[in-house]
Amino acid sequence: MEKAAILHDPNNYYFYSTGRDTFTVKLMAKAGDVSSVVLHYRDKYIPLDKLDTRGQVSMDRVACDGVHDYFEAELHINMLCIRYFFELKDQEGTSAYYGNYFFYDREPEIIEEMFDCPQLSREEERYEAPEWAKGRVVYQIFVDRFASDKEVPAEEWYKQELTHKDSLHGSLRGIAQKIPYLKGLGAEVLYLTPIFKANTTHKYDTVDYLQIDPDFGTEEDLRELTGKAHEAGMYVVLDAVFNHTSRDFFAFRDLLENQENSRYRDWYYVDEFPARGELLPTYRSFSYFGGMPKLNCRNPEVRQYVCDVAAYWTRNCQVDGWRLDVADEIGRDFWREFRRRLREINPQILIIGEIWHFNGSYLEGDQWDGVMNYHFTDAVKGLLLEKRLTPEGFAGRLDFVRGRLKKETVPYLWNLIDSHDTARFLDQAGNDKRILKLAASLQMLLPGMPMIYYGDEVGMPGKKGSACRRGMYWDRERQDEALFAFYRRLIAIRKRYPVIGGGETEWIWNLQKEALLCWRFCDNGREQVMVLLNVGECAAEAQQYAGRRELLSEAGFEGMVPPLSCCVLEGI
Amino acid sequence: MEKAAILHDPNNYYFYSTGRDTFTVKLMAKAGDVSSVVLHYRDKYIPLDKLDTRGQVSMDRVACDGVHDYFEAELHINMLCIRYFFELKDQEGTSAYYGNYFFYDREPEIIEEMFDCPQLSREEERYEAPEWAKGRVVYQIFVDRFASDKEVPAEEWYKQELTHKDSLHGSLRGIAQKIPYLKGLGAEVLYLTPIFKANTTHKYDTVDYLQIDPDFGTEEDLRELTGKAHEAGMYVVLDAVFNHTSRDFFAFRDLLENQENSRYRDWYYVDEFPARGELLPTYRSFSYFGGMPKLNCRNPEVRQYVCDVAAYWTRNCQVDGWRLDVADEIGRDFWREFRRRLREINPQILIIGEIWHFNGSYLEGDQWDGVMNYHFTDAVKGLLLEKRLTPEGFAGRLDFVRGRLKKETVPYLWNLIDSHDTARFLDQAGNDKRILKLAASLQMLLPGMPMIYYGDEVGMPGKKGSACRRGMYWDRERQDEALFAFYRRLIAIRKRYPVIGGGETEWIWNLQKEALLCWRFCDNGREQVMVLLNVGECAAEAQQYAGRRELLSEAGFEGMVPPLSCCVLEGI
Repeated sequence: MEKAAILHDPNNYYFYSTGRDTFTVKLMAKAGDVSSVVLHYRDKYIPLDKLDTRGQVSMDRVACDGVHDYFEAELHINMLCIRYFFELKDQEGTSAYYGNYFFYDREPEIIEEMFDCPQLSREEERYEAPEWAKGRVVYQIFVDRFASDKEVPAEEWYKQELTHKDSLHGSLRGIAQKIPYLKGLGAEVLYLTPIFKANTTHKYDTVDYLQIDPDFGTEEDLRELTGKAHEAGMYVVLDAVFNHTSRDFFAFRDLLENQENSRYRDWYYVDEFPARGELLPTYRSFSYFGGMPKLNCRNPEVRQYVCDVAAYWTRNCQVDGWRLDVADEIGRDFWREFRRRLREINPQILIIGEIWHFNGSYLEGDQWDGVMNYHFTDAVKGLLLEKRLTPEGFAGRLDFVRGRLKKETVPYLWNLIDSHDTARFLDQAGNDKRILKLAASLQMLLPGMPMIYYGDEVGMPGKKGSACRRGMYWDRERQDEALFAFYRRLIAIRKRYPVIGGGETEWIWNLQKEALLCWRFCDNGREQVMVLLNVGECAAEAQQYAGRRELLSEAGFEGMVPPLSCCVLEGI
Repeated sequence: MEKAAILHDPNNYYFYSTGRDTFTVKLMAKAGDVSSVVLHYRDKYIPLDKLDTRGQVSMDRVACDGVHDYFEAELHINMLCIRYFFELKDQEGTSAYYGNYFFYDREPEIIEEMFDCPQLSREEERYEAPEWAKGRVVYQIFVDRFASDKEVPAEEWYKQELTHKDSLHGSLRGIAQKIPYLKGLGAEVLYLTPIFKANTTHKYDTVDYLQIDPDFGTEEDLRELTGKAHEAGMYVVLDAVFNHTSRDFFAFRDLLENQENSRYRDWYYVDEFPARGELLPTYRSFSYFGGMPKLNCRNPEVRQYVCDVAAYWTRNCQVDGWRLDVADEIGRDFWREFRRRLREINPQILIIGEIWHFNGSYLEGDQWDGVMNYHFTDAVKGLLLEKRLTPEGFAGRLDFVRGRLKKETVPYLWNLIDSHDTARFLDQAGNDKRILKLAASLQMLLPGMPMIYYGDEVGMPGKKGSACRRGMYWDRERQDEALFAFYRRLIAIRKRYPVIGGGETEWIWNLQKEALLCWRFCDNGREQVMVLLNVGECAAEAQQYAGRRELLSEAGFEGMVPPLSCCVLEGI
């Protein structure tokens, strides 16, 4: 057994409370190395000769990322503190015992050889996520380019060559008017890129956090939008750009004017006075852009200000959630405070961090509920575009996340394939809509919150930069209706089987595993739905599933999955 | 190479800031498996064709616990975000590349194959520990039994059979009178078991947090004690018993009286009303004792109350630190708040948690500065008493802590061999003072804050329970003067070489490693001091070090370490 690969500690992901007297315990091992794990436990304070509190529970292998296996058990205890160790068997059946970070070849007897975990301290650290958001379908709206309530001439609206200075006059009222369209698609959460007063059309350089940008509308418009969305059973998430401001934000203007003597000098990170923004700025900023000076979120005054801003909109405009821009460039202590503050106002607020790589430390429950899941994006690209990943490799990437996070977090991950910060997926796929459909199937038929970047569902094109932020295709001639129907169908299946959004993916490898990615979802042991996704250029056989009712199959299933296509079958 | 044993993430222990633009990066691997690790990095936002920001740094193997090697590098960067990966060579010289949690057989090129860490978010998470406390010698005083300012007859003071109800009339003024004695020994930090009004003599069942127990003195006495200690260059740490109260604490009295209707019902964890304390109490308590109901530290009112109490004493009596009783049975979020509150009053406050096993999650810097290091206690017992650990095994246990914590935390670990909660070490060692001396040498000649349990230095006996809490031996006839001199000498050596308390232990294995535990400390590459500790019953040879000046050697060194003894040599 590879002991150096065994990982557990009585904290965070490895031992956490999911309810009164209920815990999830996890252990990591080398992939394929350990055949079984049993968790042995007892009460810390009650001597065995007084009352035998010993118990044991088998752990399940719930994920494998190719390097590690992840074992998990649900534990029900009512003990002040639990003492425990693991009994691990290798593939030959030889046992090793793991307790208090070290290994023994016999059952640990003394307390120093056991892990120790106080039950209530883990229960005190139980955090809740907003139940309503679990597995919901998100629709990202780039506000200036989605819909306008003004008359914008088609030649302006559909202009191909745009810069970030071109306004198409998209607006909040425009979005509100499109709620029936969004509802028809099946979108449930509307995520709006920033709407506060800023200098650019993307509005990521805030000038005034307390004013809706007049280009987009008014506070009343926002209230009307959230009101109409709620009436339609939809939710609204705003973009929280608190990593940086524009240079025209009042505090930075004061800083530029008064330099060292500014009342706001500690609101930013100035490396060297005078603060100057040309070329490499003398202050910290987003991506070295002088126009986006970075706020000092360690400063209690800044914290207070920022939390007040988010609190203001949450309270006054019934905002349902916040997507945090450049969220990982701000420390975790700030986000803990941010969450505390917002949940005082709306205990069901949804908090999603933008982060481009995997990082579990923001997802312990006390900071963000989920992330813009670019880890998923990368896996999809690796599987469908760059062929870096086999179906098994793809499953491994998803299992990595399943294994490394609390499983309760998975339904809050925003599974995206593109955004305003990337080329559209269709463009990346060489405009091959079959590939886009496969990607959309992965989004819609796996746990998490699929995020549709506006217009993907009607086949909008566009490279990274302004080209992927063009005016939404509202003309019937421009829209790919079949694609829209495909998206709508996927979403309908997703809603019919809630296990898809919030359940456990079970991978199936008994078919042609070089081409077919197959998985299913069960509910209490009963198979609900099965997906067969052929990423190869040839049809792939799946005879044993022939005859099942098809929920989605463009070319007809009949025991064969056509090339580059997805079949969804009803469970039996 | 055993890839499943490689561990790194861009958080906490593995990537943390130690100063402006300065970081420690760590990586864990299977022991003996990896021959070299190089960290490759570049700026996230500046394209390579614009400016080549690439750099690399070799990582050192700083610790080995027998299962894992710990590699570490200091990194100096001025980048908004760093992209990086590791190049690992196995013992045959074959390279593997590790980035973003996965492995490659060539240098990662795309961003998805690299780790990513924003510099400022780690800098925002930099926490400070009180500089004054680093490596200091702690002396634990069980207040009722250490010294009295009253005339207590010897037959009462030295009584052997005691219960926790017997008061010996120890007092704060008594302690103050003994400051010259403590100073003579070399103690620097006085840790007092609880002093607030309580029912027992140990005072761990608080009745009133805002009153000094009249048995022990007055608030004025405490102020005088801290004042005198400070004059003598010493510090005072109090015991913070916030996990539980007594049943006579006002809130619990109200709860018992008014049950469900009590204004304080949510100050505790009542499983079932009526709250009753007989046999198994119907509320959560410490160790199932009905007399010690557990406070609900998740309740904001309780948090406020408890923080106010600690703030009161810190402010009004110049307390230098708090030792947190049963600290791990309270959630981490509470301790974060506690630290924030106390540091507003005294930015140099020392916070030490009581915890009986290793748990790094409280030691990230935002909660406790150190712990009662029972992990050390266990290693000492394993080496000297139970012979579970060889010298190498012992070194491995210490390296485990060195590897798993930030190295900056190590000088704050309270290395103890016994306490009021255990039998005295001398008793455990079958009253063999040679063994006690070896244990004391391990305490005093290794990094951390050695904690002397009152009376150990004069050879007090006593089993677990009341027997280890007897009246301090003040009579010359009772005191072992030679032992006291030995302790004093050890402490003097420790103070002469500050690298001992706060430096890096370098283990030496070129001698008889089954019997000799040897280590040294260097300062900027220059050897300062070397320790040879013979845990065997035979003399052990160390000829190559003969001729060095001896700092401590009872029987005379001359190239041989006598059985069960410790030699300290001056470095060359």
